[in-house]
Amino acid sequence: MKKGLLQRLDEGVVIGDGGFVFALEKRGYVKAGPWTPEATVQYPDAVRGLHREFLRAGADVMQAFTFYASDDKLSNRGNKSSAKYTCRGINDAACRLAREVAEEGDGLVAGGLSQTPTYLSGMSKADTQKEFQKQVDVFVENKVDFLIAEYFEHVEEMVWAIEVCRKSGLPVVASMCIGPDGDLHGITAGECAVQMAKAGAHVVGINCHFDPFITLEGLRKMKAALDAAGLKVHLIAQPLAFHTPDAQKQGFIDLPEFPFGLEPRICTRWDMHRYAREAYDLGVRYIGGCCGFEAYHIRAVAEELAKERGKLPAGSEKHEQWAGGLKMHTKPWVRARASRQYWENLCPSSGRPFSAAMSKPDAWGVTAGDSSLKQKTTATTEEELTSLVKPGKVANGK
Amino acid sequence: MKKGLLQRLDEGVVIGDGGFVFALEKRGYVKAGPWTPEATVQYPDAVRGLHREFLRAGADVMQAFTFYASDDKLSNRGNKSSAKYTCRGINDAACRLAREVAEEGDGLVAGGLSQTPTYLSGMSKADTQKEFQKQVDVFVENKVDFLIAEYFEHVEEMVWAIEVCRKSGLPVVASMCIGPDGDLHGITAGECAVQMAKAGAHVVGINCHFDPFITLEGLRKMKAALDAAGLKVHLIAQPLAFHTPDAQKQGFIDLPEFPFGLEPRICTRWDMHRYAREAYDLGVRYIGGCCGFEAYHIRAVAEELAKERGKLPAGSEKHEQWAGGLKMHTKPWVRARASRQYWENLCPSSGRPFSAAMSKPDAWGVTAGDSSLKQKTTATTEEELTSLVKPGKVANGK
Amino acid sequence: MKKGLLQRLDEGVVIGDGGFVFALEKRGYVKAGPWTPEATVQYPDAVRGLHREFLRAGADVMQAFTFYASDDKLSNRGNKSSAKYTCRGINDAACRLAREVAEEGDGLVAGGLSQTPTYLSGMSKADTQKEFQKQVDVFVENKVDFLIAEYFEHVEEMVWAIEVCRKSGLPVVASMCIGPDGDLHGITAGECAVQMAKAGAHVVGINCHFDPFITLEGLRKMKAALDAAGLKVHLIAQPLAFHTPDAQKQGFIDLPEFPFGLEPRICTRWDMHRYAREAYDLGVRYIGGCCGFEAYHIRAVAEELAKERGKLPAGSEKHEQWAGGLKMHTKPWVRARASRQYWENLCPSSGRPFSAAMSKPDAWGVTAGDSSLKQKTTATTEEELTSLVKPGKVANGK
Amino acid sequence: MKKGLLQRLDEGVVIGDGGFVFALEKRGYVKAGPWTPEATVQYPDAVRGLHREFLRAGADVMQAFTFYASDDKLSNRGNKSSAKYTCRGINDAACRLAREVAEEGDGLVAGGLSQTPTYLSGMSKADTQKEFQKQVDVFVENKVDFLIAEYFEHVEEMVWAIEVCRKSGLPVVASMCIGPDGDLHGITAGECAVQMAKAGAHVVGINCHFDPFITLEGLRKMKAALDAAGLKVHLIAQPLAFHTPDAQKQGFIDLPEFPFGLEPRICTRWDMHRYAREAYDLGVRYIGGCCGFEAYHIRAVAEELAKERGKLPAGSEKHEQWAGGLKMHTKPWVRARASRQYWENLCPSSGRPFSAAMSKPDAWGVTAGDSSLKQKTTATTEEELTSLVKPGKVANGK
Repeated sequence: MKKGLLQRLDEGVVIGDGGFVFALEKRGYVKAGPWTPEATVQYPDAVRGLHREFLRAGADVMQAFTFYASDDKLSNRGNKSSAKYTCRGINDAACRLAREVAEEGDGLVAGGLSQTPTYLSGMSKADTQKEFQKQVDVFVENKVDFLIAEYFEHVEEMVWAIEVCRKSGLPVVASMCIGPDGDLHGITAGECAVQMAKAGAHVVGINCHFDPFITLEGLRKMKAALDAAGLKVHLIAQPLAFHTPDAQKQGFIDLPEFPFGLEPRICTRWDMHRYAREAYDLGVRYIGGCCGFEAYHIRAVAEELAKERGKLPAGSEKHEQWAGGLKMHTKPWVRARASRQYWENLCPSSGRPFSAAMSKPDAWGVTAGDSSLKQKTTATTEEELTSLVKPGKVANGK
Repeated sequence: MKKGLLQRLDEGVVIGDGGFVFALEKRGYVKAGPWTPEATVQYPDAVRGLHREFLRAGADVMQAFTFYASDDKLSNRGNKSSAKYTCRGINDAACRLAREVAEEGDGLVAGGLSQTPTYLSGMSKADTQKEFQKQVDVFVENKVDFLIAEYFEHVEEMVWAIEVCRKSGLPVVASMCIGPDGDLHGITAGECAVQMAKAGAHVVGINCHFDPFITLEGLRKMKAALDAAGLKVHLIAQPLAFHTPDAQKQGFIDLPEFPFGLEPRICTRWDMHRYAREAYDLGVRYIGGCCGFEAYHIRAVAEELAKERGKLPAGSEKHEQWAGGLKMHTKPWVRARASRQYWENLCPSSGRPFSAAMSKPDAWGVTAGDSSLKQKTTATTEEELTSLVKPGKVANGK
Repeated sequence: MKKGLLQRLDEGVVIGDGGFVFALEKRGYVKAGPWTPEATVQYPDAVRGLHREFLRAGADVMQAFTFYASDDKLSNRGNKSSAKYTCRGINDAACRLAREVAEEGDGLVAGGLSQTPTYLSGMSKADTQKEFQKQVDVFVENKVDFLIAEYFEHVEEMVWAIEVCRKSGLPVVASMCIGPDGDLHGITAGECAVQMAKAGAHVVGINCHFDPFITLEGLRKMKAALDAAGLKVHLIAQPLAFHTPDAQKQGFIDLPEFPFGLEPRICTRWDMHRYAREAYDLGVRYIGGCCGFEAYHIRAVAEELAKERGKLPAGSEKHEQWAGGLKMHTKPWVRARASRQYWENLCPSSGRPFSAAMSKPDAWGVTAGDSSLKQKTTATTEEELTSLVKPGKVANGK
Repeated sequence: MKKGLLQRLDEGVVIGDGGFVFALEKRGYVKAGPWTPEATVQYPDAVRGLHREFLRAGADVMQAFTFYASDDKLSNRGNKSSAKYTCRGINDAACRLAREVAEEGDGLVAGGLSQTPTYLSGMSKADTQKEFQKQVDVFVENKVDFLIAEYFEHVEEMVWAIEVCRKSGLPVVASMCIGPDGDLHGITAGECAVQMAKAGAHVVGINCHFDPFITLEGLRKMKAALDAAGLKVHLIAQPLAFHTPDAQKQGFIDLPEFPFGLEPRICTRWDMHRYAREAYDLGVRYIGGCCGFEAYHIRAVAEELAKERGKLPAGSEKHEQWAGGLKMHTKPWVRARASRQYWENLCPSSGRPFSAAMSKPDAWGVTAGDSSLKQKTTATTEEELTSLVKPGKVANGK
């Protein structure tokens, strides 16, 4: 009998997995733009393989690949996935794949909800909750170990999601894609945490949209507000693996590099050592990753916390800590790099002399209710596209 | 009956696959340092999965994962892989995995040799060729479609490898890990090409060690020398997917970021469009990648050359060319990025304000025969390690 | 009869001059380290010449070059200037040079005080005010138009200076070298402004230590606090002409580049157009510069505010606004740059591929009273120097 | 009786002065665009003051401020200087100012010629030499110590200038504004040197257009060619004080930052120590600077070569070598920077997170004879200006 999420959090650290949409996009199984997870039905081997990488890297949670797997999203702007594969079919396959790999180790399975086009289109609470309920029904049927409502930009919608989740009787994790500046309606990060906890979430925190260190700034504010309100819940961090010091309120979506030019921002494994340590010291006990987090990033988290967890991940078979494997390298000057000091102090160069350190984000400042955010089942036309490109707006180039 | 390599090259473009050691290291199946491919025996699903990604991305060649799979390498500096899995076992498994995936499409299987510790240790031609012969025997038994001798720093050893390969009767591809400045014994890139062609290679060129654009500079020199010598062979390019404008003669190995801090140097898919076009225009007909090249990079090569090849890769099902999929994105300002002009002009920022554009390479200047390069079956001791770290040498950090 | 400072501020904008110590250091007339102004006695032509450049650039104020011209500073750490030239002699010469040039136009003469080693050494209010009084006596004898107490890191000492200045009956300007985070004793920028105003300063604000834009952030806080306290005073900004986004509380002194490697941070004239506009819009009416500000920076301020002032500076004879003079350039592509749009959008490259965008400041966190800050008349010995260099501390280099 | 140039070069090192047009532009006395030196008549104090700074910094040569002081240039594109001040008047005043300051020390006076609009307009040798002759006549009347023909982009025009100069009987220095790639007609740097020497120049070399280190690369080629041709002449280097690793054949004029955004490229004094040492080691004996070189840069050259010259410059009174003056700084962490090691290893940050390391030069590729380069006495019209701005061309900004 496996221990449940809450018991594990009470006793120590739970390591989450990394991001699926970005990793599978690069592998050819997810389309950037809609970002929907019909791959669970179309390419189950690829999804299973990625779960296995994270399990091996030390993840305690197999999060079913159900990001954006709601009917309204699967049929947005010309996406035909809902019609071809059904929301139910995609969610169901995702749960089975996650369970299969979880059983290969001591993993837990989580079913995940995320924000909906229905809410962004300004529709009602009932309409929005109906979308959530359809997914939760499948999760309950598949006996997932807990639910995770993540990637919400508005705490109002998040609270609606938590309400739906709590009715299942399962533990509920609630994680918003916000930074230290709070949600897109201007509600502070601290107040978001308080509302999530009061709505019944057992674990609250932040995922996606910002790099590990900005995410932890947000969590610091959440923790202070929760303490001030006398609320006892666990904290979760699942940040990007991209450096975003220049992102504004809306996170990496606004950066000119999103989503096809983010490479120079990818965090190293050493960044993740630092992230894991700082998160742990802050009191975060559910520590994972989101977009950009690959297996080696999760492994770095697990290696940093090896002492606290009393074990190394399976994947450390192929990774001696702090670059120890380089002692086996042919070239003597690479062997000379087999030390913690070397890598902890490295400030890696970009090899891109025409690129700058920071970008100026797009900052359209539109949010839930704005007509440009409304769900549409038809594809974007060339005319609509042209109307979006601001005259005089140039790319980040030279 | 599939067309063979040489016929394909005569008729058009052959797209190679990407890099295995770096991709599988991140996934947890290869150890950085020895970089040896015992994963073919230990984790066949992971290797098969990566082959499939490249096939789907448009690769015409499944290169058996036999990099550094020679007995001397598998037992170098404390590596026990040779003893546990045998050189023969690893090579054999590699061929079978590559063949299995090749049969799922129209792929060819290549068996690969690379430079040996035997040569670097200053041993004889006979000793070195014996290492090669052991691998070639397995490739021939497995009926690979052609042989590829790649990642050689010295043309002398390369010629020895070609001699062994030619005895098999199979087409021979010869690819050195050099840049425009030539091999590590000071032989020019042009002269290397001439020697490879005269030794009997059907295809000659460059892989690894430098970014796509520096690699093409090297190929330009090779082409000029081959033309001047009246030699008719095909050209191959399989560069890094890391920007290396600052690398010196020995390539990215010398950069302070090698191998665990290369993230900010990773090429975007748009860099690969440019690479594919420039390679094609130069007359290179075997166009692939090496370390750092993932499926989405190969897909970009295949998409750039879609017209020349008369087809898109299977993986383009999940990737509308030039960011077309972004038309389905929720945020209007991201939809506004759904154009070639946007991405072609983007100069991506690093998000790393404390990092510079370029690094100063280590430049130890030792090469074949130097005692520090000699094969050793025992592990590197702490004393040896300490002796390698130059006093006063600091990392690239601040 | 010239209008006085306060009348001018009530009626419009007053433009200050730029920095003397940095400009004259580069010209060979001031020594970096002590930074004391004995040049007024030694090299009057050089000082006069610099005043003239600022007058011509549009400055309304000739600030007598009396920075750090107090007895305690002139005899600190091996400096012999006090003995050779006397504090009185230096201050007196400074006033006469400023007056001479001011009379060539419509300029006002200001006598300036700055923070003292006496205070930093933890000595008494009486001791500190005695140092100030000696300078003020000379200023009054020389009939300066107003007094300016500037470059104070602690508002406590500033208040003492204001008290001494007010007794003269002259208008008093009070300007601290702090940023948005307040003074070195942890007093907020807003509270500093309030204390300065309450102590009787007619104009309060910020000079030195931070770039124009961070300085304006600090002024925004000062303004808010003054408004909240119902205090009516004018505002002054005299920032650095160096970009300092990475400076912490103690400003550019802490940056590894101070004082001999600041070149890549120097602001362009276009930065100063933006500064002048933003300062004016914020309500700042005394707009000048400090270290790094040269005549062309002041001219840019005057050109940006030409409409508000109803005139261009004399120096615009040699500078058509917004690069208009480039129409006379030989090369056609340089003529093509003769536009505001070109220069307003330029993000100038550094030409330094091994340098980063930002530095990590030294942050010793010592302040008034710390033994390492105490005044000493003897020179720093090699032993003292060695004890200051932290083991393992490396420069910002590679 | 002062020693002449050639004797001084035979016996040791001659230090040149720095740049006048850029320094005086910033001070308000020269207009960028035409860059002509009527300030010698209009603002003699300012010109005299700058000469004095260079003399004090260690310069052995006072180069009369006659850059571009030819009739055709003084009346180009709306410039009225020729009419108001006459070519003769400007050159005459320049000689007298240089002589006056030279007499304050052991300085030599040089009269300078530079390339002409007449040549660029495609006019005849006779026409071009006539322009030169007018200036040389004034120099001879003023008894300058030697002539310097500098800032020539085409060796053909340079040879014509040397011919005119040689007839005066004075020593002739010939310095082209080219880099390692040679002149704008495609003649190699080595061949340019040979032609200059054969035409009778006593000293040949390079000034302006490139940074010190690229300039020295060019001189290395010149030296090799002169040696190969058995020609014995002295070498001169007078580079920019701006980093230009990204400049192409035409130098810094092509960089998007020219001339009003070059600040982040300004060399530090430590760069100049390295420059002086490398120039000396290469055998260059006339070592000075051009645009961007201020007194403190020249002083750094003189300090680096103090041992070779047996003396420090007068200006070192205010500059203890290798930052020794910082021992007198108040802050202990700044005192800790009083060492050669600190400054030699510093890689200064730009404080500009939105700027890149390198720019892409404009590269119009037009040269002598092209209609867009022709001399015109009328001002550039708005229509002409518009026709120059390439559609779609954006500044280097973001």
